[in-house]
Amino acid sequence: MTQTNNSLNYHVSVDCVVFGFDFGKLNVLLLERNFTYQGEEYNDLKLPGDLVRTDEDLDTAASRVLKELTGLENIYLRQFAAIGTPNRLNRLDRDMEWLRFIGHPEEVVVTVAYYSLINIDQDKIDKFCLQANTRWHPVAEITELAFDHMEILNDALLMLRSELKSNPIGFELLPSKFTLSQLQKLYEVILGTELDKRNFRKKVSNMPYVVPINEKEKDVSHKPARYYIFSKKVYEKTRKNSFDFSV
Amino acid sequence: MTQTNNSLNYHVSVDCVVFGFDFGKLNVLLLERNFTYQGEEYNDLKLPGDLVRTDEDLDTAASRVLKELTGLENIYLRQFAAIGTPNRLNRLDRDMEWLRFIGHPEEVVVTVAYYSLINIDQDKIDKFCLQANTRWHPVAEITELAFDHMEILNDALLMLRSELKSNPIGFELLPSKFTLSQLQKLYEVILGTELDKRNFRKKVSNMPYVVPINEKEKDVSHKPARYYIFSKKVYEKTRKNSFDFSV
Repeated sequence: MTQTNNSLNYHVSVDCVVFGFDFGKLNVLLLERNFTYQGEEYNDLKLPGDLVRTDEDLDTAASRVLKELTGLENIYLRQFAAIGTPNRLNRLDRDMEWLRFIGHPEEVVVTVAYYSLINIDQDKIDKFCLQANTRWHPVAEITELAFDHMEILNDALLMLRSELKSNPIGFELLPSKFTLSQLQKLYEVILGTELDKRNFRKKVSNMPYVVPINEKEKDVSHKPARYYIFSKKVYEKTRKNSFDFSV
Repeated sequence: MTQTNNSLNYHVSVDCVVFGFDFGKLNVLLLERNFTYQGEEYNDLKLPGDLVRTDEDLDTAASRVLKELTGLENIYLRQFAAIGTPNRLNRLDRDMEWLRFIGHPEEVVVTVAYYSLINIDQDKIDKFCLQANTRWHPVAEITELAFDHMEILNDALLMLRSELKSNPIGFELLPSKFTLSQLQKLYEVILGTELDKRNFRKKVSNMPYVVPINEKEKDVSHKPARYYIFSKKVYEKTRKNSFDFSV
């Protein structure tokens, strides 16, 4: 959280909700705050974010924050809300105290929120270079965050689940060939709900863009399952916008 | 555009792209600027907008702007982008001069853009109480706006067309009973394209939520057309999110 008085926009910040999927659960990248307020020690969590510099646009600011915290570049970040509720930063005295402590102006009123969804499973995990106070936390275990960040996280989660139901973003989190159990697990983990296996497979069988290939799992203790691929080409060709009369 | 130094947030504004549909064309609500710069008189157009006051949230600011300009309240406004490109307000010297003239701080960097779509046809037009310098302009005729407002308008138009193709927002602009010609005209006007009548009717006939009723046009010179209604209930029941495995 660097600050040079003449290169920061005092009234606008960005906050990033970065979801990480690891097949076991849905995680979110959070920053730990350690500070003492009125003799009591607080260890709480906040979303990664920073003030926007006057020489950068909002998207650049969000990418910079993410790069500083994780070492990752070129992560897809999507703007999903601007939030300017008066006094959103000073609901708690200790939040105000912390802002003063880090030299952050208290008058910041508007934050632009971004969200991102990345696969933190196996092959990608070693590319991360997390800062000491930054860690993945299971979304399901988070009940409180600093400032209004819990609301921002909840909004991002609603957005993510709605996107997952209407667009094929889930396939980007899977290996290029995947089993139907993996696909189902992905939906269950992100939606936070169990799905009926039979119903799920029936629906998938009606998706011409989820294509079985002539290859099965190897070296597994259970009956080897068939692999599938997602065909973006077939999807683009067969997708239907309900009210698109031009095609 | 009122301004009291201690009650405005100098760094954040809202801008509203208000689309008005009148069956003939798609219009947008614009504010005329009249001013002289370096001996030359300029009459150009801008989107309605204002600085956000520190005691209001972003949505409130957008509603206030719209109320001040049109007299209308409770218009649905949807936030669709926050824009913070450095120097977005001072690409042209005359824009800078105008900001100084109206006492607007030049350091405003971020604007939050809203869009709205309303029916300005017949029965609603008399509810409008437009300010003297505010008028509806056909979208198709606009080629230049102040600041970066042309880009904001174009982004809003892309958003509107995409929404229209995937959601039943079009029906909100029609009378409760409508003919298929009216429905087709609505899509043609907003999408800015002609649709094939046969293909259009075939698609509509596959929509169980567009329901023919036992009533036809009266007192028309052509063959009276049947009326239809949009059943939100049937739509909610039959809509399909492509990747919603839970239903």
